[in-house]
Amino acid sequence: MNSIFKNMDQHPAYGKLQKAALAPFDLTASGALSLKRLALYRCQVASFKLLYGTQRIDEQSLDLLQGLADQSATVAQFKMMKKGEAMNRITGFASENRQVLHTAGRDLFSAPPHNHEATKQARQELDKLQTFLADLDSNRITNHLGEPFNNLISIGIGGSDLGPRAVYLALKSFAKENRQVHFISNIDPDDSAAVLKDLDLSRTLVSVVSKSGTTLETLTNEELVKQAFLKAGLDPKNHFVAVTGANSPMDDQDKYLRSFLMFDYICGRYSVSSMVGGLLLSFAIGFKNYKKFLEGANRIDDAAEEKDIRKNLPLLLAMLGIWNRNFLNYDTLTILPYSQALVRFVAHLQQCDMESNGKSINRQGGQIKYHSGPVIWGEPGTNGQHSFYQLLHQGTTIVPSEFIGFRQSQYGKDLVVDQTSSQEKLVANLLAQTIALASGEKSANPNRNFSGNRPCSVLLADQLTPETMGELLAIYENKIAFQGFVWNINSFDQEGVQLGKTLANRLLDIIANKPGESPIEQALLKNADIVKHT
Amino acid sequence: MNSIFKNMDQHPAYGKLQKAALAPFDLTASGALSLKRLALYRCQVASFKLLYGTQRIDEQSLDLLQGLADQSATVAQFKMMKKGEAMNRITGFASENRQVLHTAGRDLFSAPPHNHEATKQARQELDKLQTFLADLDSNRITNHLGEPFNNLISIGIGGSDLGPRAVYLALKSFAKENRQVHFISNIDPDDSAAVLKDLDLSRTLVSVVSKSGTTLETLTNEELVKQAFLKAGLDPKNHFVAVTGANSPMDDQDKYLRSFLMFDYICGRYSVSSMVGGLLLSFAIGFKNYKKFLEGANRIDDAAEEKDIRKNLPLLLAMLGIWNRNFLNYDTLTILPYSQALVRFVAHLQQCDMESNGKSINRQGGQIKYHSGPVIWGEPGTNGQHSFYQLLHQGTTIVPSEFIGFRQSQYGKDLVVDQTSSQEKLVANLLAQTIALASGEKSANPNRNFSGNRPCSVLLADQLTPETMGELLAIYENKIAFQGFVWNINSFDQEGVQLGKTLANRLLDIIANKPGESPIEQALLKNADIVKHT
Repeated sequence: MNSIFKNMDQHPAYGKLQKAALAPFDLTASGALSLKRLALYRCQVASFKLLYGTQRIDEQSLDLLQGLADQSATVAQFKMMKKGEAMNRITGFASENRQVLHTAGRDLFSAPPHNHEATKQARQELDKLQTFLADLDSNRITNHLGEPFNNLISIGIGGSDLGPRAVYLALKSFAKENRQVHFISNIDPDDSAAVLKDLDLSRTLVSVVSKSGTTLETLTNEELVKQAFLKAGLDPKNHFVAVTGANSPMDDQDKYLRSFLMFDYICGRYSVSSMVGGLLLSFAIGFKNYKKFLEGANRIDDAAEEKDIRKNLPLLLAMLGIWNRNFLNYDTLTILPYSQALVRFVAHLQQCDMESNGKSINRQGGQIKYHSGPVIWGEPGTNGQHSFYQLLHQGTTIVPSEFIGFRQSQYGKDLVVDQTSSQEKLVANLLAQTIALASGEKSANPNRNFSGNRPCSVLLADQLTPETMGELLAIYENKIAFQGFVWNINSFDQEGVQLGKTLANRLLDIIANKPGESPIEQALLKNADIVKHT
Repeated sequence: MNSIFKNMDQHPAYGKLQKAALAPFDLTASGALSLKRLALYRCQVASFKLLYGTQRIDEQSLDLLQGLADQSATVAQFKMMKKGEAMNRITGFASENRQVLHTAGRDLFSAPPHNHEATKQARQELDKLQTFLADLDSNRITNHLGEPFNNLISIGIGGSDLGPRAVYLALKSFAKENRQVHFISNIDPDDSAAVLKDLDLSRTLVSVVSKSGTTLETLTNEELVKQAFLKAGLDPKNHFVAVTGANSPMDDQDKYLRSFLMFDYICGRYSVSSMVGGLLLSFAIGFKNYKKFLEGANRIDDAAEEKDIRKNLPLLLAMLGIWNRNFLNYDTLTILPYSQALVRFVAHLQQCDMESNGKSINRQGGQIKYHSGPVIWGEPGTNGQHSFYQLLHQGTTIVPSEFIGFRQSQYGKDLVVDQTSSQEKLVANLLAQTIALASGEKSANPNRNFSGNRPCSVLLADQLTPETMGELLAIYENKIAFQGFVWNINSFDQEGVQLGKTLANRLLDIIANKPGESPIEQALLKNADIVKHT
């Protein structure tokens, strides 16, 4: 297995790409953005079309990127992952040493599934979930007064929060009437206080999500919320549902109304399509819609097995990202959804990408000598246009951009002003930005000069629905995995978050043992006690 | 005036700083983070303390940064700005050529104010606002049924949205009972549809904010919301309030219940402390609290006149940022508030900073040969710890971080678990992160190795209140202005957002003139019609 895990700079295409990057395609040249070019550089997979004529690529660089993708055995590695190889490991050193099988939970629609055992487990949990939801829908499960539950509080953090929250907000317009989801994640007590303030707890379910069953923030918030239920005279056991790993401290039938399992082969940041997202999403939008979401994701998982980068949208997106990151040397990537419903989707991608690929060590424990994952950031357009786009257009740092847009709105409540609808204005703005970034514009007034050659691309679909949301999520999840394969890093662990936790616990020991004596930042001054080089 | 507007690389300190940056202070050395160092590198101004011992600075680099601040005449320029010089201009070229007087609106508490005329105008609007609010509070202004208004929809975008929204969310725990503010900004019709879905319009005020009175998104959304009022049988004139420039198309007493003025010497992104923020904030938290917010900002405006960077917190923050950006060569800055209430504050700072300082041209129209504003991004902690912090600790790109924390929570609903409260856990986590980033940790397992030397600092105060929120806002506004002074750029225009607008209008013309004929992205393919090099 290790024989195909090679550093990116060992492949023949690497040096050639470095050379090609010395004179990348000039988007500002007269006629550069021709009809022919824009029509050629389009890739349609499932419901999405990627328009990438506004990237600084040409046939030569695309061929070289194809070479790099082939030499890195990206598709072979992707299939290994789906089949259940232990892709989450560092050879020769202690590591999580786990399979990576988030795809198995949506592999219900292909026959046969890539990994029978994991798909079987996913199906079992889905069946439990379907029964639970049917019980809620038909009032077989109610509160102690026989009333239906219409709120669900999700308590989780990181992977157990950002993805499910982003997808819930994206699909809120599909939510059943009287079904709302609320989120508590931060250890900040004001986070839970603000959520609990206006809720009728008697009609509220609480989903507590932690794979290990030991996450500090989640357990603390569970306790805070439990106290609120007790204070309201309600028995938490009738309201609280657990989503956790088998045999974790939270896997306790006596404490919860129901328990759903998370498996250790699914990283938190890839868990939206497991019970972590499943419970709250199907509570809100219904089980059928949730299955459509899984089906959309599966469609992309299948399509991502194509070896031709021009026909494999997630792989193409990955290779264009590597072109910008490693050969044109850009440190960040901004993702700009022209859809208010995707308001938190970038925060989720920020987590999914940066936690996966913010690594400096390869899968053999060696230091890599090229850049891995960029900083991912962004906000919905058109809002951003009135904000940070100034820097995108005229700043001294070049920021590659990925736009996401839809031809139709979700609610269909649109209005024609000056002969065009709001949705048309939204998409026209998106497309205009890509042209402005790529082409630039010359002006005699230096302050009105746009240098252009700022690379970007567009992901376009008809409408944001459960199915296309599933597709979009899987496009990005698979893009991130493909990049990790090329960089030869382990995209599925997160050792980098451990040190902070350890130091926080040492600080808390100091605070706990000297209550009232020292204000909190005094503890910082006592850092001599907590900084220990091992 | 131009004689003190010099490029940063013309100052004697510039070359010396480049040399000093070849061997910056090593935070990972044994004993580097000593008690003495951490105690020395603290700066207290008003309610905030900046802890910056975890930046890669020492006495020599600080002295050189002081030199650069002095040679750039930062404080003199700041005073010029407050007095009303036309700081928003490019000498020798067509430019906005305006004063920059957002500080005047909070200069009510100093006697005499720096600019009498602007402060007088601000006071007039404040008086109008106070009367309007008193009329609302005492039911002299009600809906047609005599009921009080308990909702306000704010329609605005960019500077008329992000700042007010961020501060409203930050101070929501101070909101009066039955007073809620909702925001519509995006041209995306789903944005307004989601807000209007559950609101009782009969008890809702609408504030429409646009300085020019011509912002496409805002006018479209105003029309959308107006239609909803008419449909509900309500007269918009009894509900709609305008915040706009004198003589703009929106400055029309016949159309609005009330009008408040914005002045052209206040940029959108600096308008939170004008009527743009004033109307909705004082509707929510009351006029008295809003005045405290202004008072906090004013306190920092005063303190920022100090020339010693070690005693001037906003200037110090600016110079540390320049050290990281221009001498240690980091492209981005992450701002990490450990306060859920500051959930949108970073989005506001992203706008304020990147729209101000994302420039490549100096104030004489020449190309600058050093970097200006970095990419600003971030999310509240501890959430981020379970997400992108992986890259902060172990990624190949170094990202300087600014943490923000408070010793006490807002709601005071806290719980002691394992001998410490949630708030203590929150701050302990914050401080632990700074140590982990700075010190790193050595491990025999390369994947558990933390290289450290990742610079960071902490802004710490007792509690997030109207006053400290005003201080925090002004700290960052003034930091951004100081950096622009050093970089010799015009931080107060935004020519970079114009080209996108122009191209969008050309695309909309194409769409409007050929309805039904071509799908939207076909318009992109017709780009030959819209890309015009002038």
